[in-house]
Amino acid sequence: MTSQPASASPAIPDLPGVRPAVQAVPAYPFTPIDAPIKLDQNESAYDFPAELKALAADRMVGQLWNRYPDLHAEGLRARVAAFEDWDEAGVVITPGSNVLIKILTELGGIGQTVLTVRPTFSVYTLEAQLLGANLVEVPLNTDFSLPVEGLKAALRANPPGVLYITQPHAPTGFLDAEAAVREVVEAADGWVVVLDEAYHQYSGTDYRDLVRAGENRLSLRTFSKAWGLAGVRLGYALSSPRLAAHLRKLVSAFNVGVLAQVALEVALEHPGYVAERAAEVRRERERVYAALQGHPVWTALPSQANFYLLRTPDADAAYRHLRSCGIVVRRQDKLPMLGGCLRVAVGSPAENDAFIEAARAFR
Amino acid sequence: MTSQPASASPAIPDLPGVRPAVQAVPAYPFTPIDAPIKLDQNESAYDFPAELKALAADRMVGQLWNRYPDLHAEGLRARVAAFEDWDEAGVVITPGSNVLIKILTELGGIGQTVLTVRPTFSVYTLEAQLLGANLVEVPLNTDFSLPVEGLKAALRANPPGVLYITQPHAPTGFLDAEAAVREVVEAADGWVVVLDEAYHQYSGTDYRDLVRAGENRLSLRTFSKAWGLAGVRLGYALSSPRLAAHLRKLVSAFNVGVLAQVALEVALEHPGYVAERAAEVRRERERVYAALQGHPVWTALPSQANFYLLRTPDADAAYRHLRSCGIVVRRQDKLPMLGGCLRVAVGSPAENDAFIEAARAFR
Repeated sequence: MTSQPASASPAIPDLPGVRPAVQAVPAYPFTPIDAPIKLDQNESAYDFPAELKALAADRMVGQLWNRYPDLHAEGLRARVAAFEDWDEAGVVITPGSNVLIKILTELGGIGQTVLTVRPTFSVYTLEAQLLGANLVEVPLNTDFSLPVEGLKAALRANPPGVLYITQPHAPTGFLDAEAAVREVVEAADGWVVVLDEAYHQYSGTDYRDLVRAGENRLSLRTFSKAWGLAGVRLGYALSSPRLAAHLRKLVSAFNVGVLAQVALEVALEHPGYVAERAAEVRRERERVYAALQGHPVWTALPSQANFYLLRTPDADAAYRHLRSCGIVVRRQDKLPMLGGCLRVAVGSPAENDAFIEAARAFR
Repeated sequence: MTSQPASASPAIPDLPGVRPAVQAVPAYPFTPIDAPIKLDQNESAYDFPAELKALAADRMVGQLWNRYPDLHAEGLRARVAAFEDWDEAGVVITPGSNVLIKILTELGGIGQTVLTVRPTFSVYTLEAQLLGANLVEVPLNTDFSLPVEGLKAALRANPPGVLYITQPHAPTGFLDAEAAVREVVEAADGWVVVLDEAYHQYSGTDYRDLVRAGENRLSLRTFSKAWGLAGVRLGYALSSPRLAAHLRKLVSAFNVGVLAQVALEVALEHPGYVAERAAEVRRERERVYAALQGHPVWTALPSQANFYLLRTPDADAAYRHLRSCGIVVRRQDKLPMLGGCLRVAVGSPAENDAFIEAARAFR
């Protein structure tokens, strides 16, 4: 099942007791769509390896399901720390990195500032609106690069809170120069600085050293993309032990269940497939770009992620054409600066072949 | 692993950007304790049935782990609705009911009021403190019954928000007369009213009819206790479709992973074990009470849950004695009104035998 933004969200009648900020946000528009080729959620095209699934399932049967798991996934935390060469006390694991974005908004956003760019990953702004943060969005430069001066001005002009920087960026796939990222991060003393690296395996970048250099800095990572575990729900933060200790106060106790813990244990014991698949995505991304060169009306915008923006003269027509070819992508054309844009994930070679064929058939 | 409150929580140095309310809350004190007999977390003494674990594990292997699950566990929601005879649009499922308490605090607590009794389940007050609610705690009556007049006065005296009523109550296990509960609930127009029924299978009570009669009312339930699935992390709310629609805005997308969904599917297809085990807990609870009658210094306080308070002249001495017998329980003696109290879960018959023997050996 996949989702597609509807043109208008259903209004929900007000209910006394519910905070006005929550009343004001429309319901998340969601219409499940079945399609043979699913390029709309930036998932891995490949399932978690079958032999690892079988190994994990066997191990799950040997676990106690009736007992609460570790309070904060302590056992897993040590394994993630070893994998990332990070201080175990600075690792926080949750069921999906979107839960960590909620926690970060609780930590530093409520009644304070959430600073980000526009357009950006929708969960940063949604949680800020729902939880009552002062939301400050600085428009991206026209080439989608970080608005360094604008962000520095906003850091000076607003009371502190949480700053989000996404590398590579979503939904554009753009990767900034390291110097630009560093300049913004170093200007953000007194703020909690989040480097969202959900897609870093596809760009080959790694901001751990920059994060390690400041107690207020955090790298947000996920097992949903390159690791092929979106269904299992696992995300994590790498930060200073001090920031992690404050974050853990806000993470619900026993948040990561024993089944997900076993799945990740097995993945971390056999991580070789991750780099192989990320390399394939990079090769396939370039192959799709080459094939779209010279397309009469569609342009694939540069990306270092496992997805890219497709600029079209008519997003609705392009979306419907692809659907008629059995392919579902994500419309992004209502976002600022993204008129006519669809977001397309890099699929398997066969899926990308089908996409290229559909693109060529579009008139 | 189990936890035990330490005498003092470690202080975490302040960090700029972190909200003062979060800085002010100490880290959750946690020292894992291994013991042969674990009566400290109110879990089911029995694991999820082995044949159902095997069935679930088989089914998990056939699922896609690389694709995001349903946005809000829509497939599961229909099954829970059928089981509970509830409108599907009024069901909200999360990874543990403690996540729903966070969401409810976000919905109606931040900058508003959280009203509860004292002592009560610690997560209500913890989330209120962390998220910046006006926390109002009305002391229980001396017999642990609901302070009906005190709660009605607090409902009048405070701006609305969220009211928690727990039946049977935690950590006392006390069950109120239905008339008392109804009187408070009906006085709470304009508030979001939560009836926490985590332990209702052990008391034989069911407040669905009262909840159904008001759009502002919600029953909070869990698969962690009578269902024996604490490790899998699944809790849910039954409410009006309107309240549920507002709640779902705050639940992180894709919050319930595919592995937990499969486990619950299997449980809901084979629910017969739940009532059988709850009946055993009730029988065992009465057997333990009978055995403790006439104990020279310990008194088991009345409970309708799968745990009870043990009043002792010296909680530390009693706790240490039980630990020396291989039994871990939860100290509650620092809570208001609960001087000298330990909280003890009803275990398996063999575990309860060991507990009775240990109690008799205490001098």
